[in-house]
Amino acid sequence: MISEIKLHDLNEGRFIEEKVKEISDAVGDGIAINALSGGVDSSVVTMLGHRALGRKLRTVFIQNGLMREGEAEMVSGIFRKLGVEIEIIDARKEFLDALKGITDPEMKREAITQAFYKKVFGRIVRESSAKYLLQGTILTDVDETVAGIKRQHNVFAQLGIDPQETFGYRILEPLIQLRKDGVRAVGQALGLPQAIFARIPFPGPALAARIIGEVTEEKLTVVRKATSVVEGLLSGRGAFQYMAILHEDRVTGMRDGKRDFGRQIEIRCWDSIDARTATPTKLPFELLEKLAVDIISEVPGVVSVTYNITSKPPSTIEAV
Amino acid sequence: MISEIKLHDLNEGRFIEEKVKEISDAVGDGIAINALSGGVDSSVVTMLGHRALGRKLRTVFIQNGLMREGEAEMVSGIFRKLGVEIEIIDARKEFLDALKGITDPEMKREAITQAFYKKVFGRIVRESSAKYLLQGTILTDVDETVAGIKRQHNVFAQLGIDPQETFGYRILEPLIQLRKDGVRAVGQALGLPQAIFARIPFPGPALAARIIGEVTEEKLTVVRKATSVVEGLLSGRGAFQYMAILHEDRVTGMRDGKRDFGRQIEIRCWDSIDARTATPTKLPFELLEKLAVDIISEVPGVVSVTYNITSKPPSTIEAV
Repeated sequence: MISEIKLHDLNEGRFIEEKVKEISDAVGDGIAINALSGGVDSSVVTMLGHRALGRKLRTVFIQNGLMREGEAEMVSGIFRKLGVEIEIIDARKEFLDALKGITDPEMKREAITQAFYKKVFGRIVRESSAKYLLQGTILTDVDETVAGIKRQHNVFAQLGIDPQETFGYRILEPLIQLRKDGVRAVGQALGLPQAIFARIPFPGPALAARIIGEVTEEKLTVVRKATSVVEGLLSGRGAFQYMAILHEDRVTGMRDGKRDFGRQIEIRCWDSIDARTATPTKLPFELLEKLAVDIISEVPGVVSVTYNITSKPPSTIEAV
Repeated sequence: MISEIKLHDLNEGRFIEEKVKEISDAVGDGIAINALSGGVDSSVVTMLGHRALGRKLRTVFIQNGLMREGEAEMVSGIFRKLGVEIEIIDARKEFLDALKGITDPEMKREAITQAFYKKVFGRIVRESSAKYLLQGTILTDVDETVAGIKRQHNVFAQLGIDPQETFGYRILEPLIQLRKDGVRAVGQALGLPQAIFARIPFPGPALAARIIGEVTEEKLTVVRKATSVVEGLLSGRGAFQYMAILHEDRVTGMRDGKRDFGRQIEIRCWDSIDARTATPTKLPFELLEKLAVDIISEVPGVVSVTYNITSKPPSTIEAV
């Protein structure tokens, strides 16, 4: 049983001090490695690990082809300014190959987990002789996985998997007692810029979680463009999370006066404190129309855009 | 080229007089038949035919299994009060069989057209020795079919089909110069109740047009229930048309604290004058939330509800 630290009980300074010591004690003279995705959780872990280990921590950014537009450059630029060097590793082919032909959401997540931890990470860890992997699992990931709602990519112990035996390294999870709000507070205390600590959550399987059905390069291009439009128009409004989802279903539309059996994009925008429950943001109708118009004009093949109006539960934040 | 009669040029009384005479002249001593769906167009044709032909017109309501809840009883009740007897014909099995395994929207429409005009109607016409079919084609149906946007179920001449040769009867289309607004005005002048002449449009393929992918009895039950909720909450608000669409895509949700890979319902509600262009109705957010809550609680298996925010074009009114 993991003992939760709620935001109002969190002393950020003391938390950082304790976790830096724990990481330092565990890794000792060894080498640790961590994967930075650019999300809040992995960014906070990178900073904690960097404080604890300095050069003994190797931080990699896995370019898996499922990322948002310009993500690798943006994230490595921010960390370079903080004195942390990020190594970008191109693993696009490995992930796309692993996802080929898979339509079931749980199998997609499993394929990404396997490609990430076993194949790509396995290789990097073997080459680096690192014995420790730092990772940004938070309590909500554990809860949802244990409850059987959604398998998070970064939860092992709770699924009965021994990472040392399976992947050849030990996993340290310094954020596992926190929820998203606590992680943000620690991130701010660690000196991360707002662009990172206040960043909206983004799923482990990245844009693969935003595609219903099989993930292909063409669909990734479509959902990446729609994501840019949605994030551009919805950032700075205080919503907890917002996203574009590409449907597999095709719907009838018209283009140049002719029938066009095209694609549909679903937008979700959530109000939430901790992702455990959430309600759709009451966006002004003019903004909803602007979202639809911009997606239709900027994303080829899309003829229809919807806005999700369901609460969690029974919905979940992501569709996949 | 059909010459359009616009609403402001329409003299309802003279129009009715002319059409009654045309129908009467064409049919002479013969027998005519028409299919009443309960929509505005076929209801107006039924009244015109009844005035022109009296007992020489046989009006059938084809129960195709694709109708809304309680539709046959409601429609036949209204017409009984107007002195018009409607014969209800059970053809559910024939339509479901015809739709089996078909997922392409155009092929679905074609299957329904064939089952309707050739199989079911062919049989009824042969048995009745009717030589004339009265039908409610309007100018928008012709436009969309000719433009190749969407094949309407009731357009033949424009597709190069000779109904006499193909189906064994001649087709009379008294409303073909009108658009929806003109048809409503004629309906009111003919003494139809508001429940009919102001009724929102409903597609020829009925609930089969509200199901993405294959049409099955189970999916018809789901979309029929969702349609009841949507029509119950959105009627009387002045919208042009509103509907529930059942997606084929499944999305992750949760039920009783567990993952439930469930169904998604899309709601569309349109503001429009004549269906040629349309914009999504700016429904209050509280009503959108109420729609989602009611659908989730009343329609088994649904975990997610969206609202369409795209205009026509590039969307069309219906998804299929």
